[in-house]
Amino acid sequence: MQKLSWWMQCLVLRTLPGSLLRREGYRIIQVSGSGVDDREEAMPLRPNSLPLPAGGTFKSCWSGNFCSAGTLAMTVIIVLLMHSCLDSWPASSHKKNWQQIFVESIDNNSISNHLKQITKEPHVAGTSENFKTADYVESNFKTYGLNAHHKDYNVLLTYPLHRSVVLTQPNHEPIKLLLNEEAVAGDPYSNNSNIIPTFHAYAPSGNASAEVIYANYGALEDFQKLAQLGVKVEGAIVIAKYGMIYRGDIVENAAQAGAVAVVIYSDPLDYGNNGTEGYYPDSQWLPPSGVQRGSVFRGIGDPLTPGWASETDAERLSVDDPSAQMPRIPSLPISAEDALPILRSLEGPVAPSEWQGALNLSEYKLGRGPGRLDISYVANQTVTSIRNVFATIKGSKEPDRLVLLGNHRDAWTFGAVDPNSGTAALLELARVIGKLMEEGWRPHRSIVLCSWDAEEYALIGSTEWVEQNIDILGASAVAYLNVDFGVAGPGFNAAASPQLDELLIEITKQVTDPDDVKQSLYTSWVASSNKTTPTIDRLGGGGSDYAAFLQHAGVPSMDISFGADYSVYHSTFDNYNWMAKFGDPLFRRHVSGLSSSEAPKSITVAPLFSAIKDLHLSTYQLTDELNILEQEGLEKLSELSSDLLYSRRELNDRLLRAERAFLDSDGIPGASWYKHLVYGPVPNDNYGSLSFPAIWGTIHEATGNGNSALNATKWAAVQHEVYRSARVTRRASLVLRGKLT
Amino acid sequence: MQKLSWWMQCLVLRTLPGSLLRREGYRIIQVSGSGVDDREEAMPLRPNSLPLPAGGTFKSCWSGNFCSAGTLAMTVIIVLLMHSCLDSWPASSHKKNWQQIFVESIDNNSISNHLKQITKEPHVAGTSENFKTADYVESNFKTYGLNAHHKDYNVLLTYPLHRSVVLTQPNHEPIKLLLNEEAVAGDPYSNNSNIIPTFHAYAPSGNASAEVIYANYGALEDFQKLAQLGVKVEGAIVIAKYGMIYRGDIVENAAQAGAVAVVIYSDPLDYGNNGTEGYYPDSQWLPPSGVQRGSVFRGIGDPLTPGWASETDAERLSVDDPSAQMPRIPSLPISAEDALPILRSLEGPVAPSEWQGALNLSEYKLGRGPGRLDISYVANQTVTSIRNVFATIKGSKEPDRLVLLGNHRDAWTFGAVDPNSGTAALLELARVIGKLMEEGWRPHRSIVLCSWDAEEYALIGSTEWVEQNIDILGASAVAYLNVDFGVAGPGFNAAASPQLDELLIEITKQVTDPDDVKQSLYTSWVASSNKTTPTIDRLGGGGSDYAAFLQHAGVPSMDISFGADYSVYHSTFDNYNWMAKFGDPLFRRHVSGLSSSEAPKSITVAPLFSAIKDLHLSTYQLTDELNILEQEGLEKLSELSSDLLYSRRELNDRLLRAERAFLDSDGIPGASWYKHLVYGPVPNDNYGSLSFPAIWGTIHEATGNGNSALNATKWAAVQHEVYRSARVTRRASLVLRGKLT
Repeated sequence: MQKLSWWMQCLVLRTLPGSLLRREGYRIIQVSGSGVDDREEAMPLRPNSLPLPAGGTFKSCWSGNFCSAGTLAMTVIIVLLMHSCLDSWPASSHKKNWQQIFVESIDNNSISNHLKQITKEPHVAGTSENFKTADYVESNFKTYGLNAHHKDYNVLLTYPLHRSVVLTQPNHEPIKLLLNEEAVAGDPYSNNSNIIPTFHAYAPSGNASAEVIYANYGALEDFQKLAQLGVKVEGAIVIAKYGMIYRGDIVENAAQAGAVAVVIYSDPLDYGNNGTEGYYPDSQWLPPSGVQRGSVFRGIGDPLTPGWASETDAERLSVDDPSAQMPRIPSLPISAEDALPILRSLEGPVAPSEWQGALNLSEYKLGRGPGRLDISYVANQTVTSIRNVFATIKGSKEPDRLVLLGNHRDAWTFGAVDPNSGTAALLELARVIGKLMEEGWRPHRSIVLCSWDAEEYALIGSTEWVEQNIDILGASAVAYLNVDFGVAGPGFNAAASPQLDELLIEITKQVTDPDDVKQSLYTSWVASSNKTTPTIDRLGGGGSDYAAFLQHAGVPSMDISFGADYSVYHSTFDNYNWMAKFGDPLFRRHVSGLSSSEAPKSITVAPLFSAIKDLHLSTYQLTDELNILEQEGLEKLSELSSDLLYSRRELNDRLLRAERAFLDSDGIPGASWYKHLVYGPVPNDNYGSLSFPAIWGTIHEATGNGNSALNATKWAAVQHEVYRSARVTRRASLVLRGKLT
Repeated sequence: MQKLSWWMQCLVLRTLPGSLLRREGYRIIQVSGSGVDDREEAMPLRPNSLPLPAGGTFKSCWSGNFCSAGTLAMTVIIVLLMHSCLDSWPASSHKKNWQQIFVESIDNNSISNHLKQITKEPHVAGTSENFKTADYVESNFKTYGLNAHHKDYNVLLTYPLHRSVVLTQPNHEPIKLLLNEEAVAGDPYSNNSNIIPTFHAYAPSGNASAEVIYANYGALEDFQKLAQLGVKVEGAIVIAKYGMIYRGDIVENAAQAGAVAVVIYSDPLDYGNNGTEGYYPDSQWLPPSGVQRGSVFRGIGDPLTPGWASETDAERLSVDDPSAQMPRIPSLPISAEDALPILRSLEGPVAPSEWQGALNLSEYKLGRGPGRLDISYVANQTVTSIRNVFATIKGSKEPDRLVLLGNHRDAWTFGAVDPNSGTAALLELARVIGKLMEEGWRPHRSIVLCSWDAEEYALIGSTEWVEQNIDILGASAVAYLNVDFGVAGPGFNAAASPQLDELLIEITKQVTDPDDVKQSLYTSWVASSNKTTPTIDRLGGGGSDYAAFLQHAGVPSMDISFGADYSVYHSTFDNYNWMAKFGDPLFRRHVSGLSSSEAPKSITVAPLFSAIKDLHLSTYQLTDELNILEQEGLEKLSELSSDLLYSRRELNDRLLRAERAFLDSDGIPGASWYKHLVYGPVPNDNYGSLSFPAIWGTIHEATGNGNSALNATKWAAVQHEVYRSARVTRRASLVLRGKLT
């Protein structure tokens, strides 16, 4: 629970997009919240510094086992949140200002209580338990005086009905795998009978019986290596490790290589710190019986309604429609405990040294066989209801302009980290906003708090809603700010559209690092990057609920967390008990790099370079315009002339539309739901993020999955993608300039 | 030249979209032009009637042969134009109001002179003569004090290099066709040596030698009829008549039927009033040697840059790339004179009675042969420059909101009707606006006057510009108002997005009919429809420069003309001389209807009906909101509070975005450049317009081009299109409501 909801401070310090290009970007016009009439007073549009109270001045601790840094973080977050929604012309000095009211309203007990309430039972999407969490969130929003509502969709979800895996090998008795996470002493949560059995969402029902092959992390290059080593995957069952790429891509890569089924396990190398510290409950590491659940669907949103909202009466594909893109072969997640006898049963070539793991095994071998698995899996695939919950705080001046803050609510088990660390903070935020509104405060623009359902299945709740509201969001959404798991340990992680980079940088400079209160978060963040500037990732993949906003609707988006992935992810042990004890990250998800290759000489990237240069130029020009308008604003603040209002709105419109300009209606080849041509997913790893994904994807295609033999047609496709990416870049320049050609 | 530029009155009476649904639609908020400060004064937002001076009070006539009704029309137009750009809060009574200044500024000599100047030489797109007309327009814009500029594109154009058609038949000497329009006594224009030879733009170079078949108008059903009658088209050369469908579709239909080349001629039945009145110069009718030039390209915009702007350094397809969709077989337009011996050479079955024409021939027979044609055609296909010219009048209050008025400038020959009747009026409009601006007038929103190039080839100038500026236009364009040929005779024709219906109706009620000054244009218009309401066509096809605005960018659009098509269309005789003598329409273009068939019982249209019902509901709700805001506006006019400004702008935004919501990024199946799913082109007739074109297109496909045998897969596609159309309709409702789900 350390640093719970640090994301918030970055989400809402401002309600406007920041720089388009890091360091060289343009700035924003701050036209943020407003108080009631008599509190309005002119002050500079862009205060250069925000006087922040030192950490020690805040209320010290909150209840339970969480304290010190976590509490400090929470308090600072809320102060910053306050600042973000604050009017640029705040309350005059003869009354308490909004910031003070906000700070004094923070109640750490409330946050702790929310987390306990939401995570007391497992709440998988589509279950009655998760509808209870929806009711909890909605009723709390209403209690806090906010305008709350919910929106349901009917979507395809899957639950396990029958699972069985038996290992057979020469001269051994058959071994029936446990497929079960053991209860842990001192952790009452782990004994809950409502925990969903370990499974892969959307894996097809089926039986498979075949020899086993070990395929490392199941990445494309792993299968290429197997081919090089002469290990025939065709017809085999693959065992692979979690930890490098999206599990849906492991299954698809295996299917493409000809495998008939897949099991994926969590090796203690990646999930147990090599076994050197013991396991939960003795340490934070995933116990040997722990299993990572998760989806293996490779699309975004409800599989049966690709591109449109899954309303009750919506058009639905049949499950076997190729457009539904369902996984082709059965798969199951298993524990390290269950993986051990399987890997022991393998002979054949010794696996490469970098493929060796930390199981109790002298060396990992590749197979094929002689160990065989008999897998039987039956899924209940059903179209059922899910529920998004919203609270809307209407803007006083520009109610049609929206800043959206979102967090999903459904969890594979208890979700104490993922995602309800964020939910608890969202609720406290709602409470404090409600209190301020009682006192007369209103934001300049509208704020929408979003509690998404069925994120774990395929980002479904957010995606269906974005697909339904895409025209309004496309026209009016200023930014979408996401938190999935807010806190899993130390280390600040941020990924954002470049438009929001400067906002991130400005805010982190104003916040103290909860792990080192002597310095700003910005300083720690830069230090962790081993560079002179912080690392801001790009949101290319489908990792969380920002995907539909950024990739499909072109809304500038941000995703922030503290700590990297954590070992108990999607296991029974992601519960309040674990959260209370541990908070350090275990492994960092590796981002699979594309093997780049030289393009033939006939390919030119000049159009793209030229377009990027023009984009730079347009940002400089916009910065000049902003400076002029800002100066004008300083001079004319008391007038609030309609001319100035229109000018500001026009300029802000250009900023928010620039992101949309990067969309192309044809989208990324082979992944046309992704419309953004500047950031997108890595082929064969939906977790990864690429710049200019359409170009890289076609290079990947042209080089024939590692075979660099040239193919003129495919290289022509690469050239076409260079042009397309150049065109969307030029479109963004035009939008920023705001002038017709 | 009768009723020159009547379009203008409808274009600019208001600068905002009107009703979405005819009769039941919502109204607009009028926030139009503003004068300089001291002239502003509160008055009702929506004056119910505009006091129009009677025709006789205006300056009487303009020079040349054009007088009476034409002049009256022009004057009334400009009065209405004046009104359209006028401030809702006009000049106070102590000074002359803008309307008076506008009326007194009209100079008919100026219009006449513009037309003569522009049409003195043929000015085909890409030629130096047409660059001269661009210079003429731009320099005049500047002379009038407007902010003018031009924007060039490099596009694929074609010109004829070599044309030869020889008719051979048993027992006859070979006949070499003239392929030439004869000079006409008393018409110096027809003797101009710079007139481009008769040809079909984008027809491929090629030779063909084959027996001839007569195929009526070359429509799909004509080829089906030939098949029924046992006439084998495979390998033949087709002769077809102009007059029912787009010529590019004639060629494509023939190619699909297996023909190797096509000649298309103008039958005196359709272009000569059956030969009963003689021909130009004795009457208005197309002389026997007259030939209709034109494009046979079936796409929209530069063929080599489909979907993106053809900048100098743009990506270009090769001409033989299938995506370029170039015509597949050679074709040429010919005269009635040249067609006669061909048709005389045919034996075989007598053509159906409704296929008979008015050539000097006892009966039209179908062939095949025995007459044969030897066709040789060489085209110069070249990427060359074209030039759009713009004048921008910056809005005083909302400069980023655009009302665009467009007219193309290029002509196949002189273009006295098509298109320069419109160009002359556009220039006079520019002059008068310039004069008003000198006196201090400014429109509320920006007005962009557009002079397009290369419309005749494939709507290229407008399309490339829209493709380049689509993000700004999508965000900011309130309406696009098009005139192609303004006047070709009596009878008011209007086609519009339903959003603009009420605007059209309101304006025509305020204007007297130039052909009958005793009644309003609205009354005449309704009378001509034989109904109680006027006929407003929908802009589904690619007929003129509105296509890119409406079909690709979703901007509400309007196209207006007086008179229908005219016989000298695209011939040498579309010149100032012809215009001076004649002005009545000859034939109306027939709109080919789709043969509808019963859908299987399993298809449901309920989702679409339900969506349409919801759209109705949303328009009623919006009307209520408008009424409230309007009332508030009346009460608070003197305040001009920022709240009211934002509210108006937000509501206006919803109106202009509603049209965009009908777009779907996948577009119409088989015609994906067309993104609008509510109005689109007729399959196999690009001139036609259909409601819900994607549904009808797939029905057409499912019924197998007249074969009504059911095909489950194809009917599933129909069902899918019903859902897609329902979805865009629901999206429009959401946008009109402006509320997230």
